Amino acid sequence: MEKVNVNKPWEQLSELLQTNDLQQVIDFVDSLNPADTALAVSRLSNSERTQLLTLLEPEDAAEVIEDIPDSQAADFIEDLQPEDAAAILEELDSDHVADLLGELDDEDATAIIDRMDPEEAEEARQFLTYDADTAGGLMISEYLDFKADQKVKDVLDNLQDNREEYADYDVQYLFVTDERDRLQGVLRMRDLLFPRRTAKLSSLMIRNPYKVNVDASLEDLRNFFEDHNLFGVPVVDADDKLCGIVMPEAVEEANEKKSTQQFLGLSGIVGGEEFRSMPLLARSGRRLSWLSLNIVLNIIAASMIAIYQDTLAAAIALAVFLPMVSDMSGCSGNQAVAVSMRELSLGLVRPTELLRVLGKEASLGVINGLALGILLGFMAYLWKGSPFLGLVVGGALAVNTVVAVSLGGAIPLLLKRAKLDPALVSSPLLTTVTDMCGFFFVLSFASLVLDKL
Amino acid sequence: MEKVNVNKPWEQLSELLQTNDLQQVIDFVDSLNPADTALAVSRLSNSERTQLLTLLEPEDAAEVIEDIPDSQAADFIEDLQPEDAAAILEELDSDHVADLLGELDDEDATAIIDRMDPEEAEEARQFLTYDADTAGGLMISEYLDFKADQKVKDVLDNLQDNREEYADYDVQYLFVTDERDRLQGVLRMRDLLFPRRTAKLSSLMIRNPYKVNVDASLEDLRNFFEDHNLFGVPVVDADDKLCGIVMPEAVEEANEKKSTQQFLGLSGIVGGEEFRSMPLLARSGRRLSWLSLNIVLNIIAASMIAIYQDTLAAAIALAVFLPMVSDMSGCSGNQAVAVSMRELSLGLVRPTELLRVLGKEASLGVINGLALGILLGFMAYLWKGSPFLGLVVGGALAVNTVVAVSLGGAIPLLLKRAKLDPALVSSPLLTTVTDMCGFFFVLSFASLVLDKL
Repeated sequence: MEKVNVNKPWEQLSELLQTNDLQQVIDFVDSLNPADTALAVSRLSNSERTQLLTLLEPEDAAEVIEDIPDSQAADFIEDLQPEDAAAILEELDSDHVADLLGELDDEDATAIIDRMDPEEAEEARQFLTYDADTAGGLMISEYLDFKADQKVKDVLDNLQDNREEYADYDVQYLFVTDERDRLQGVLRMRDLLFPRRTAKLSSLMIRNPYKVNVDASLEDLRNFFEDHNLFGVPVVDADDKLCGIVMPEAVEEANEKKSTQQFLGLSGIVGGEEFRSMPLLARSGRRLSWLSLNIVLNIIAASMIAIYQDTLAAAIALAVFLPMVSDMSGCSGNQAVAVSMRELSLGLVRPTELLRVLGKEASLGVINGLALGILLGFMAYLWKGSPFLGLVVGGALAVNTVVAVSLGGAIPLLLKRAKLDPALVSSPLLTTVTDMCGFFFVLSFASLVLDKL
Repeated sequence: MEKVNVNKPWEQLSELLQTNDLQQVIDFVDSLNPADTALAVSRLSNSERTQLLTLLEPEDAAEVIEDIPDSQAADFIEDLQPEDAAAILEELDSDHVADLLGELDDEDATAIIDRMDPEEAEEARQFLTYDADTAGGLMISEYLDFKADQKVKDVLDNLQDNREEYADYDVQYLFVTDERDRLQGVLRMRDLLFPRRTAKLSSLMIRNPYKVNVDASLEDLRNFFEDHNLFGVPVVDADDKLCGIVMPEAVEEANEKKSTQQFLGLSGIVGGEEFRSMPLLARSGRRLSWLSLNIVLNIIAASMIAIYQDTLAAAIALAVFLPMVSDMSGCSGNQAVAVSMRELSLGLVRPTELLRVLGKEASLGVINGLALGILLGFMAYLWKGSPFLGLVVGGALAVNTVVAVSLGGAIPLLLKRAKLDPALVSSPLLTTVTDMCGFFFVLSFASLVLDKL
């Protein structure tokens, strides 16, 4: 079962596609590990990719799709005829279907759903109504449920009869419902090992099992699984009707997705993931949208220099230090942003605890401000031999560091309270203010001692 | 079983600790959800926290520790007497023990291990030898294994006898080994449902089961679990001896940890996580270590301004645009860094594919460089009415954007090849070069047309 690393799998795949030999293509794709499958498929041309996904049986195509990151897979599915896409989606887990459809335009998603098997289509529509980061969005519909008045024998027969279908199922529990599909209890597989075969499930099941509501948040689910070492938790709707199962892996995966979004957001990649397989203009446009906002913020900050232009002209050496003071403060502030974002996401600080954060950061800001200020001030003094230049530059960096870390610590909390995404907004906001303040401190301090510089 | 949100759980916990009433403390901690437990414990004073963890039975203390992020939990454990710490660690999963011990100083870790139950100590020592991000570092030792010549009846008896102990076990498989502990096969619990009770495991087990080597990487494990929808995979050493099980959740968790480290590293939080419950000087020192490197890099970049000081003095309006050009290029470059890091971690680009990345980024850089350059150049022209100022500023931004995105795309690949961490090094490196080039382009272009500015 060892998978081998192939040097340029997309070239081989592309050649095989030209021969149109289905079996060879299947064998080759099977021989790739998931990362190489994703790589190979992403490097094909659009038409080759469409050829591959339609040449393969829907079941095999679905396995390929599973190896590809969601946002990329959604792009590929969009290129297919809706009926081909529908056939593939029918082979995927229900929460995966919802994730993919969620990345498509509404129009494309509808076209695909309309061509799915009515039952699966109904399910997909239902799943799409849930928020991605709730129990409804994370649950799967592949689970085993039986009625409370069924007997052990019924279950065992059913398990035997559907051995193959169930082999793909993730769930190690049986869920027991009443005649109106309301969750009554749960049974572990092993609980079927010992009892009489005529025993009713209602007499064996664990009553009042753990469950979560469809709208339980990602944080609720994390808390749940940290508290309970379970393989999955049943999800019920407002009427207590069983509607799915959330697995702990799905929760971890959603968490990872969130971390990734934070990371991308902080780096100015907005509106979802970017892959270099996407069209150039789409990539360029999305990056520009964020940069254009930034350039406006930059202009606001730099206008402070324009105001003090005469001061600067009178002591041109200051120009060397302006970007240094603003950059360094920006770095200090971003450290505080990261700590706040992390503590927020771990629940170690609450959005309302502004004073606590300000206190903790301001005291750190004083220490680091002094350290950095003395360092930079001393270097300025050495360079030009002017103690006043050292005082102006060092003093400005010290004061601006206190401003930057306090602000950096506070901004994520404020954004969270304003229901804005700290990952997207913190850094541009912080940098604008710290740039502006940095320029202001250097130049206004300098204007006080201008004759001595 | 509903957990309630308590307003300031640490205050209540602190009060309860003063009464020293064990049962009340247990009840209160039980009533908190994991996030609130972590919050409450992190806000206690050091002495209160030590009192809590020693007052509780080791088993209950271990549950508290499980709710706390590893690096913070390690700090708390360090404050305990080694024998108290050892008693608590004995109650944790083996991979969690290894994670915590790995975060301690060697000396502290040894002191604790020496006081653990000899068998558990031996295991902990063994686990510590594995890299955290390998199968050895991620596996747990809590699994069920039987010998190939045992019978179904033996297993069922054993399961009955150890019901309580096994209830905590995560694993739904039985592993079958030979007399020298080498992995022979695997059985699902449900495979015990049907066969005769006198059947030998060797006749029932699935032979040649999937397995991974102790040194399998995180990426191998991700690939494995993407390929195989299993609840866990057995881990064997070089002699094929079964030594543990890796669960898919552990792999997802390790992944999330990696994303978090990337996010923190990019923001300049190095040397592990920072929480505001840590001592002020430790936090300040760690942040300073990264900032001091940055200030040196900043000085190198700013020295470019010093070189062109006369040009700048002759056209002081340029000073307004210097930080803008360098900042904007830095932002563009960081977008490319993020895309490269993401593609690398997904395996969508290989570290050797420098030309591919340079091609993709340079073409994007030309488009975005032109767009931003024209925007900024036009604004500069409007502000001072000088077309030459516009050309200098806009041209410099355009050229520097191409440099920045090409470099930003390439740096993570180069660092990966040099086995350095892209998250830590990319941004400072990129910013230094783009600052320097930005200053250079603005000022050298300006010096060409100085008499017209």
